[in-house]
Amino acid sequence: MRILVLNVNTTASMTTAIGDSAREVASPGTQIIELTPDFGADSCEGNFESYLAAIAVIDKVVNYPEPFDAVIQAGYGEHGREGLQELLEVPVVDITEAAASTAQFLGHKYSVVTTLDRTVPLIEDRLKLAGLTDRLASVRASGLGVLELESDPQRAIEAIVDQSRHAVQEDKAEVICLGCGGMAELEHQVREATGVPIVDGVRAAVTIAESMVRMGLSTSKVRTYAPPRPKRVIGWPLTRLTEVNAAS
Amino acid sequence: MRILVLNVNTTASMTTAIGDSAREVASPGTQIIELTPDFGADSCEGNFESYLAAIAVIDKVVNYPEPFDAVIQAGYGEHGREGLQELLEVPVVDITEAAASTAQFLGHKYSVVTTLDRTVPLIEDRLKLAGLTDRLASVRASGLGVLELESDPQRAIEAIVDQSRHAVQEDKAEVICLGCGGMAELEHQVREATGVPIVDGVRAAVTIAESMVRMGLSTSKVRTYAPPRPKRVIGWPLTRLTEVNAAS
Amino acid sequence: MRILVLNVNTTASMTTAIGDSAREVASPGTQIIELTPDFGADSCEGNFESYLAAIAVIDKVVNYPEPFDAVIQAGYGEHGREGLQELLEVPVVDITEAAASTAQFLGHKYSVVTTLDRTVPLIEDRLKLAGLTDRLASVRASGLGVLELESDPQRAIEAIVDQSRHAVQEDKAEVICLGCGGMAELEHQVREATGVPIVDGVRAAVTIAESMVRMGLSTSKVRTYAPPRPKRVIGWPLTRLTEVNAAS
Amino acid sequence: MRILVLNVNTTASMTTAIGDSAREVASPGTQIIELTPDFGADSCEGNFESYLAAIAVIDKVVNYPEPFDAVIQAGYGEHGREGLQELLEVPVVDITEAAASTAQFLGHKYSVVTTLDRTVPLIEDRLKLAGLTDRLASVRASGLGVLELESDPQRAIEAIVDQSRHAVQEDKAEVICLGCGGMAELEHQVREATGVPIVDGVRAAVTIAESMVRMGLSTSKVRTYAPPRPKRVIGWPLTRLTEVNAAS
Amino acid sequence: MRILVLNVNTTASMTTAIGDSAREVASPGTQIIELTPDFGADSCEGNFESYLAAIAVIDKVVNYPEPFDAVIQAGYGEHGREGLQELLEVPVVDITEAAASTAQFLGHKYSVVTTLDRTVPLIEDRLKLAGLTDRLASVRASGLGVLELESDPQRAIEAIVDQSRHAVQEDKAEVICLGCGGMAELEHQVREATGVPIVDGVRAAVTIAESMVRMGLSTSKVRTYAPPRPKRVIGWPLTRLTEVNAAS
Amino acid sequence: MRILVLNVNTTASMTTAIGDSAREVASPGTQIIELTPDFGADSCEGNFESYLAAIAVIDKVVNYPEPFDAVIQAGYGEHGREGLQELLEVPVVDITEAAASTAQFLGHKYSVVTTLDRTVPLIEDRLKLAGLTDRLASVRASGLGVLELESDPQRAIEAIVDQSRHAVQEDKAEVICLGCGGMAELEHQVREATGVPIVDGVRAAVTIAESMVRMGLSTSKVRTYAPPRPKRVIGWPLTRLTEVNAAS
Repeated sequence: MRILVLNVNTTASMTTAIGDSAREVASPGTQIIELTPDFGADSCEGNFESYLAAIAVIDKVVNYPEPFDAVIQAGYGEHGREGLQELLEVPVVDITEAAASTAQFLGHKYSVVTTLDRTVPLIEDRLKLAGLTDRLASVRASGLGVLELESDPQRAIEAIVDQSRHAVQEDKAEVICLGCGGMAELEHQVREATGVPIVDGVRAAVTIAESMVRMGLSTSKVRTYAPPRPKRVIGWPLTRLTEVNAAS
Repeated sequence: MRILVLNVNTTASMTTAIGDSAREVASPGTQIIELTPDFGADSCEGNFESYLAAIAVIDKVVNYPEPFDAVIQAGYGEHGREGLQELLEVPVVDITEAAASTAQFLGHKYSVVTTLDRTVPLIEDRLKLAGLTDRLASVRASGLGVLELESDPQRAIEAIVDQSRHAVQEDKAEVICLGCGGMAELEHQVREATGVPIVDGVRAAVTIAESMVRMGLSTSKVRTYAPPRPKRVIGWPLTRLTEVNAAS
Repeated sequence: MRILVLNVNTTASMTTAIGDSAREVASPGTQIIELTPDFGADSCEGNFESYLAAIAVIDKVVNYPEPFDAVIQAGYGEHGREGLQELLEVPVVDITEAAASTAQFLGHKYSVVTTLDRTVPLIEDRLKLAGLTDRLASVRASGLGVLELESDPQRAIEAIVDQSRHAVQEDKAEVICLGCGGMAELEHQVREATGVPIVDGVRAAVTIAESMVRMGLSTSKVRTYAPPRPKRVIGWPLTRLTEVNAAS
Repeated sequence: MRILVLNVNTTASMTTAIGDSAREVASPGTQIIELTPDFGADSCEGNFESYLAAIAVIDKVVNYPEPFDAVIQAGYGEHGREGLQELLEVPVVDITEAAASTAQFLGHKYSVVTTLDRTVPLIEDRLKLAGLTDRLASVRASGLGVLELESDPQRAIEAIVDQSRHAVQEDKAEVICLGCGGMAELEHQVREATGVPIVDGVRAAVTIAESMVRMGLSTSKVRTYAPPRPKRVIGWPLTRLTEVNAAS
Repeated sequence: MRILVLNVNTTASMTTAIGDSAREVASPGTQIIELTPDFGADSCEGNFESYLAAIAVIDKVVNYPEPFDAVIQAGYGEHGREGLQELLEVPVVDITEAAASTAQFLGHKYSVVTTLDRTVPLIEDRLKLAGLTDRLASVRASGLGVLELESDPQRAIEAIVDQSRHAVQEDKAEVICLGCGGMAELEHQVREATGVPIVDGVRAAVTIAESMVRMGLSTSKVRTYAPPRPKRVIGWPLTRLTEVNAAS
Repeated sequence: MRILVLNVNTTASMTTAIGDSAREVASPGTQIIELTPDFGADSCEGNFESYLAAIAVIDKVVNYPEPFDAVIQAGYGEHGREGLQELLEVPVVDITEAAASTAQFLGHKYSVVTTLDRTVPLIEDRLKLAGLTDRLASVRASGLGVLELESDPQRAIEAIVDQSRHAVQEDKAEVICLGCGGMAELEHQVREATGVPIVDGVRAAVTIAESMVRMGLSTSKVRTYAPPRPKRVIGWPLTRLTEVNAAS
């Protein structure tokens, strides 16, 4: 089984970290292929960057030259999953939803702890659309940006541990979803500090994508995610896709 | 006052119709400038096309060479409004939300009648995020595509009139929002058939955009719609924008 | 265009302030006519006073001797709008709903800051019925009564500024609706203190009422707001109305 | 124990029917005093009439010369209960809420069957404010007015039985609340036709009012229903009340 | 009238206290019969104990040898009420729901104050299923177990008074439901400290059960609470019930 | 890895079918151990039977003599999962929730199609508590009992296919969860008839349970699902459990 794991930003080191995380839980026989979009921002921390990432991720996936069995969109609170579902026949799993769905099997309420405060509404909105807010205790932000996770990891970890503790003690979360990726150390320290299960979205998504493939299930095509109707799409870098549509 | 009205698809005749509709209610002294994106699909009827439109609309707006006072995104149920709000200092009004907000002043419940069934969930999702579903009676589809409104108008009108009547009689809508634009005849016939007020999103949006400017109000910049943080954005046709960000 | 703006209490100086506020945004050619009810309390700060105001406002409007194009009910969180909608053919706009609808175009969440704590549930209930609570961050009270706004303005302003700051910082409001009227100074200071857009309900309502008239839209009469059925209405000061009904 | 039962309209024969219904379940020792307002419409079938009734009921209650232990507002879907709660020290029970609360102990979902379609939104709104809609299957209307219940009872009964059957079979109601009062025959036939428990709001309210008195419970006065602050209330027939307030 | 009041745990002294509380409001002529289950935990403070109590209460009720008119399940936030409703023809009242329904007649919002924090989600879940959370301000816990109410009453009272005060001042509750039973002193002190009405679930349930019987109402049998279909039920101490089913 | 799969009824042939279904998707190295409770009904079609099953399942699991890595409760819409979560250290997965969580990755809305109409409210309630109803289109019933699936499979299949078709066409479901188990033929025919993905709860639960184990995740113990406090539990067949508790 081959699973494409798409980073949503253009920072290659984060793609590597995401791929490593995915491989930790992938079954023997599952090949994880992590991909970096060809355009977009070096971190996604708002709606403009997220909308751009939606298209960049689609562009990367539809131009991927080999067959694949599932796609994971590895950005927290990002746009675009619905577009991929229309264009592909294979299952598409968003890590925001994967983490929340997994958390709900582990405790009565869950919280998400992320980086910047400005991305909290994006995450809340994606969870609202996904129908996963009834048991959401809170989305909390550490106040540190995505790239600071790499540049000053210790300070970032402390801030995230701190917010996780508040989520458990004040918001009554019983599970924490980490809305920022790629650090084994982070996960370990949050678990130590709070005593609750910590869900990593990338790993959760890998298990869900594998499960879909094993069960022979993929996106329903009867309504919302039907393939786009054949039509003219002009002036766009998504070459293969537009050619296909223009030809049909 | 100068208001940019953005078509979301690349069909120029629809842009003209939207501009004409906008000018019908614009105040003397308001200049309506209708714009067609440089890339994207010739009609938006799904998530992929809508995500593409989000970026195409942003591209068109940020490259517009003259000053302007407000922006209207003239696509029903489309993505992208939040991105524009981050990038601009002036008010941004989406016609889906403008129509619904207006309808709520006119009756206890409202319905949206649109074209294809597959776009119903997109509209429902946009209204859900906008917090405008409590008084939504239904979103109904005529089953005819956006471009068929132009190619076979009489059949399109009949189908839309029919669904509007169901919305009023069965779903108990007291107001109808037309989720498809640009035909005076359509509006007239739906009103005749149902006896309820008919709200056109473009016109509603023009009055709301003008109102914001008159009141000196624009998008809040304290959190969700703060400008993007300065960062590297690579390989993208949105040239002016990326240069600005790279320079800061 | 002639718009009636109804104060809900019997304090004439507040009527004047409301009228002045309305005129600030009224279009050239729009005539604002502010009216004080003939009976009722000198401030509305609870349900009894609000129910009384509902009838006093109806009484004043239906006895107004000249034609008019729209009506604004200028009380925050008050009863009665639905009754006016039944009795009139012209649009009716409540300032509580006008402010909230406007705020939703400006930020992801909004708060209302009002006077007495006891009126908070009234405002919450009116917003709930209006379907405008999904994006409501909070309704907060300064603890000072309506009339204290006039008698000790500086203390009142400080208390309201303080609550507005809490709304933005703790409740994550991105827009503030001032649920108490008529002071330019107040609005200025709240904006300075919070950095977010401040919506004044009266002004928002004027722009919405004008917009309805320009679009040729008025209250739907098919169900909830159909005119009262002809019937006997006895012993009541609403003389003109009861005569009309008795005669039909 | 003395319980005032307030008709909301000015039709004396309906007051009598309501009083008789109340006495059927009143405990020995409970005195039911049915009252007709001094002003208002001879039936309440919309918002204007309902707002007028709110004040007329308040007027009647505050001028009642004897002591009493509880008040029942016997109108379905009417305004005003909150005003009474502010002005009185004794419990106030609205029959719409009494019926729904009772129904929820008897089945998984309940429906309300009422008279005119135009009153359906009023009932829905009152139940929404009361927090009693989660288990509401539907509010259905027979299409016949309040007074037709008296003039052509057999036709009225058939229409209500018909809607009740739809509520059980299609909307999956397990209990029916009759949103129109005073006919033993009606209740009997609806029960026969549907096989589900039928709740009469007046009788439910009597048992609840008695229960409150027995438990020594009355309206909380700490916030929403605190007594009105002393203030000037002018020009109003509610003489005793305005005098009291003016004097304090 | 004979009402069975079922303790959910196996501590006989609590059964006695519950019975005494019930008798305080029972009408003359109502016989309160308090019962202790034959198996289960000596206090119910979690889901396992609560599920066990559900079956133990059913076992006790279906084996009760005399006729009875109503059943009260006297545990806060416990499972099982729906099972009793299927098996019995007489009304079944759960004290959690009885208290909340009663509280909603007394104030705009209510809180529940209970013992252990771990039972808060159970109570929230039961109220959610009962459709009684719209006006729920909070469920708060004193941190002391059920049995500590008996062993160190003064400390327990102080902790509960403290949480009740928070509920009123911070969560804006206007009524408190005590989610732990049997102490007149407790109720008195909470009322003194908060100034709001205090609802005891057992007493509320007694008045509701009596009311149902007086109105001739009982559980709807058309769908959710229809009697179990005749089938084989093996190996279970509920001897009478299983025999009956086996025989039918 | 060893996963216990618990049938909720006492019909051994259904246990076998469930086990077979589970093994179809289990990974190599995963041992599926299907278990039949020692007491309870031969089918679960209501609350009493479901509460009994809750305890019977707990009894069976806590007395299982070998170590195990996860537990699946294989009953649709049944009580009890929370009790198992308290008593066990390993993950517990309910098939109702597993199916719904899986369906949400595959389409915009999903429906559940089950057997008897009387079990619809149980399923709706379990999904409500699980926070999985926002995207639930409907729960529909074929009208045939659990055991009729075995005795007259063709008629049962037709009825379920029919309801599934309604779910897709009328309720706009894009995915169907089969709320009744164990027939490959059924799944095949529903997929043929509707063209949408069909989710089997048992298989979905197996993949989720395996995923939890692979990620090293289990139930949070900080609040709702903390182990029961040590206390006396009397007179109960759950011998091992009560001894442990009595000893602590």
